[in-house]
This record gives sequence, structure tokens and C-alpha cells, in this order.
Amino acid sequence: MAVYTDVSFEDLEDFLAVYDIGPIHVFKGIAEGVSNSNYFLQTETGAFILTLYEKRVEVDDLPFYLGLMEHLARAGIACPTPVHARNGNVTGTLNDKPAAILTFLDGVSLRRPTAEHCTFAGRALAELHEAGAGFPGKRANALGLNGWRALASDCKGKSDAVADGLGSLIEDELATLTMSWPTALPAGVIHADLFPDNVLFVDNKLSGIIDFYFACSDALAYDLAVTLNAWCFEPDGAFNLTKGRALAAGYQAKRKLQPAERAALPILCRGAALRFLLTRLYDWINPDPAALVRPKDPREFARRLRFHRNASGPEAYGL
Amino acid sequence: MAVYTDVSFEDLEDFLAVYDIGPIHVFKGIAEGVSNSNYFLQTETGAFILTLYEKRVEVDDLPFYLGLMEHLARAGIACPTPVHARNGNVTGTLNDKPAAILTFLDGVSLRRPTAEHCTFAGRALAELHEAGAGFPGKRANALGLNGWRALASDCKGKSDAVADGLGSLIEDELATLTMSWPTALPAGVIHADLFPDNVLFVDNKLSGIIDFYFACSDALAYDLAVTLNAWCFEPDGAFNLTKGRALAAGYQAKRKLQPAERAALPILCRGAALRFLLTRLYDWINPDPAALVRPKDPREFARRLRFHRNASGPEAYGL
Repeated sequence: MAVYTDVSFEDLEDFLAVYDIGPIHVFKGIAEGVSNSNYFLQTETGAFILTLYEKRVEVDDLPFYLGLMEHLARAGIACPTPVHARNGNVTGTLNDKPAAILTFLDGVSLRRPTAEHCTFAGRALAELHEAGAGFPGKRANALGLNGWRALASDCKGKSDAVADGLGSLIEDELATLTMSWPTALPAGVIHADLFPDNVLFVDNKLSGIIDFYFACSDALAYDLAVTLNAWCFEPDGAFNLTKGRALAAGYQAKRKLQPAERAALPILCRGAALRFLLTRLYDWINPDPAALVRPKDPREFARRLRFHRNASGPEAYGL
Repeated sequence: MAVYTDVSFEDLEDFLAVYDIGPIHVFKGIAEGVSNSNYFLQTETGAFILTLYEKRVEVDDLPFYLGLMEHLARAGIACPTPVHARNGNVTGTLNDKPAAILTFLDGVSLRRPTAEHCTFAGRALAELHEAGAGFPGKRANALGLNGWRALASDCKGKSDAVADGLGSLIEDELATLTMSWPTALPAGVIHADLFPDNVLFVDNKLSGIIDFYFACSDALAYDLAVTLNAWCFEPDGAFNLTKGRALAAGYQAKRKLQPAERAALPILCRGAALRFLLTRLYDWINPDPAALVRPKDPREFARRLRFHRNASGPEAYGL
């Protein structure tokens, strides 16, 4: 984690005084979350995650994130849901930072998911899209086309030192996407970061979806494109068509793609690959000295982007 | 934590194949342990701590540490106990590192213990000493007089930059302790690091003692001196006599100090203060750039050492 606030038991006890979750049995800082401090909390009544929000931008969007999780959990999605204090509040202040308690989900994220796991992930994503339909909150995607342009401009001149030709790949791609990015696809709430890290399994069954801190309002099929990028490439960089088919089939079992969405898939996949290429490149060029984890290699997503540029059509993904 | 190994679910699953603890429900890296990587692990059968040992020195002593915890747990001490693989082993290899699974104890460590908590801590320390009596393992205290000399020599010339007069305080103290350190006191297994961090409470009752990675064979009363240093000073540096009395009374309710132990207490307290002064000073002068936590201020223990130097006798501690 990039930030880590040390919370004493006594301060936690004061914070919990306005909740009805019983005496504390376990309280441990966990090595999770990039811009938050997260704690595993167990009380007499159950297991929770306590999160301290460290970044201003997240704090402004907290009502959206927490409201969304509550909405989705009520609609039957296995996701964390905020615990209300006795006065109804879902956030409070701990060590001078906004903090929330969310229900804890059992499950473990997989490093090497199989095609079967991809089917589960696709189905859960479609269920999330359906369940999000009634949610009134709106949040623009800060990592859409305009966000990519800003990141590309921040990285300008430094990309080729990371990989030969990376600068022109990004420029070309931004130009193409600016011309052809679809704007009339079915939209709604998307997770926008459904990597295997954020999907939990128990005994090979999907037990939960976590980390809604990139969720926003955008094209639903773009979320599928993110998820294809995240789940269906092998460590050697090759797209695994079996996994692509499995993920798409899982998705369409719950929500059938419209022809326009299906047709847009290659361009959406290019956008999704560029998004992760750019955020990783930015973190690679500007490493956080306090970060516990090494920045992820942006070049992985340059390879994926090149695959998408060569994709003949939605068939290339098993659709 | 200073070191952090990222373990995948799949590698964990392989590692657990030789244990009978059931399928994995939760697996989270926790922000605990200075030279180990620790994970909270929950399976169908219970909660555990998985530890990866990162430092060579600890690995050589693992049979002592793990054997001791098993011995103490069998004798009724609430401490983690190693889980045996089906072949009887208590250590295995995970990510190329020695690793062990220990039972997880509920409870939370206190930042601001009261006198009542001190009584519990004193009693638990005496119970640990009594329970350790039958343990056959031996481990010299690497942080005894010789260890202090080595640390002092490593810090030589750099101490006065941390606090005026610190260098001569350390030299003086080492000379005095070399002359007068008691060597014939009742000895046995000691915890050697019983700070509030390492004592867990649930609902204000002591629920466990953890972190045996400084445990060794040494004078039992020295362990009490460490614990007095750790629990009975206020943030402003003053010794809290009420807490001292409470801790000593808790201890003596289970194991009565001999007259020689009682008489040696001031000098043992000086040694204990010097031990933490020196290890903190060393870490302060040589900060680990990968450390998640800031090094602790050594000057706290310089103040404690000065208190002990002025102590008239065991009465100064409430004995």
C-alpha cells in the first residue's frame, strides 16, 4: 500500500462507539489498497474491513462509491456493503481521516484463473451491470479519453526510455480513438477495474467482487473490454481465445450484447489497453517512494494494445 | 514490515496440500512483523497466521522458537502454536522461503494500557516463566551484554548527533553493567520482548501473548525488567509507580521473586533500557529504506535509563 495510517486500539474503540457491532476481537492492518489504509476488523458480530481514505479525490466521491456498494449488495451482488452508525452515517472520522466500515467477504483472488473462472467473472460483471441499472448516482469516468490525453501529455518524452516506440504508439492510438470512440452505446454503472485481484473465490466458486473505487458511469461494453484485457492474456502476452470465449459467454448468459456493442468491442479493447498502459506508465515514470509494491510493468499493456490493433473483429475475442 | 513477500493463492494452495486444515477462505498480507512476512489465513477449520521467515538468523533458530511455542501452548499459555503437516513437519518452503503456519489468537494490543492491564501482563509473564521450566531448548540471548557492546561499537561516533551526551551515557553504562551484571540469578526461557504490542486483550481480559522471535535463555528477572520498561512509563517519560506495583504484583502472584532477584532489579532495568536504547539507536542511524514503519525514537529509552540510574532500590519500582 502506498499510504499507511497506524490506528491505535483506543482510537478505534472511540470510533466504534457510535456503531452497534460489538466488542473488538481482531484488528490488523492489511497489505491491500493502493491509496487507502485497510484493516481487517473482527468483532463479536462479524468480520469487517475498516478503510481510511487518504486521497482527497476519493473522499469527494465517497457517497457515490459507498452508495453504489449498498445498492448492489441490496440487489444481490456479493460485494462489501457499508455499515451504518446508529445515526445512519456510513462515514466517520478516524485519525483525522474519513473512514468507513464495510462488511468483509470471504474469498481469495487468483493469480492464474482458468477459463472456468473467467466464465464466473463474466457472469458476475453482467449481473453487476443489471443490478446497477436502478442506481441514481453518477460519476464521470476520470480515466476516459480526456484522462488518457492528460496522462499521455504527462508522460510525453519519457515513454521511449521505457520501451522503444512507445511514445508514437500512444500518440497514434490516441488519435485513432479520438476519431472512432463510440459514444452511443448502452451505458450505466461500471466497475472499471475488474482484474482477478478484485474477484474473490472460495472453493472455485465466485464469492465476491471488491474494490469499487474506480466505479463510474460509462459504456457497459467498455467494462467487458477492461475485463477481457484483465483476464484473458497469458503471461507470455498471448490472448487466450478459450478464456475470451468463456468470459464473453458468462457475460452474455446474463446480459446479451447488442450488435453495436459487439461491433465496438475491438475499439473498446484498444481503449481499455491504453488506459492501463497509461496509468502504469505514469506510475513507472513517477514511482511513489513510500509504495510497498513495485509499480506494474506498462509494457504488458503495450503488447495487449498491439493485439487489439490487429484484431479483425469481435470474433478475435471469441464473440 | 520491513520485508514483504507476495504469495499467490496458487502457491499457497500447493503449500497447504500437505496440511489438513481444509480449503482457504481468507488470505491477506498483514502489516505486522519487522523481519518476517505475515499473512492472516482462514480456512474451513479455523484462523491461522502464515509466516515467511526472511532473515537467515531467525531461520537457524526456528526449531527453538516453534518448539517453545508448542511447549508453552501445551502447558496452557495462550500463545500461537505451530500446525503440523501430515508428515509431522512444522516448517515448509513457500516462495523459496521457510514458512510456518501458527494458530491465530483473537485479541488486540493496547496503545495505552492501564494498571489493571499491567497486572494481567505481569501475571502472564510469570506463567510463561513457570511453563517454560520444562522446555529443553536453549538459545543464548544475542542481545545480552556482548550484543550491547557490539551495537554500541557500531553506533560509536554517531550517537551524539541523535542526542547530546548519548555517546558517553552508553559508554558509562556499558562499563557499569560489565562490572555489576548479575550472573547467578534463576534463569530459564524468557520472552525478552513483552511490549504491549505483543500482548492481546479481548474485552479487557488478556487473550494471548505473541511474537516469540526474541525468546531466549536468560535470567527470569531480566524479563520482568524488560516488561517494566515496556509497560510502566508514561508518554512524558515518567515512571508510573502504580503500574509498576500492579505489574510486579501480577508477576509475584504467580512466581515470587527471590531476594537476589529483587535486589538486582534496578541493574536489570538499566540493562533492559540500554538494550532497547541500542537497538533503536542502531535502526535510527541505519534506517531500512524498505521499512513500512518509521524507526522508533531511541531517546525514549535514554530517559528511562536515566530514571533507572537514579533508582534507590527495588522500592522505586513498587517492589
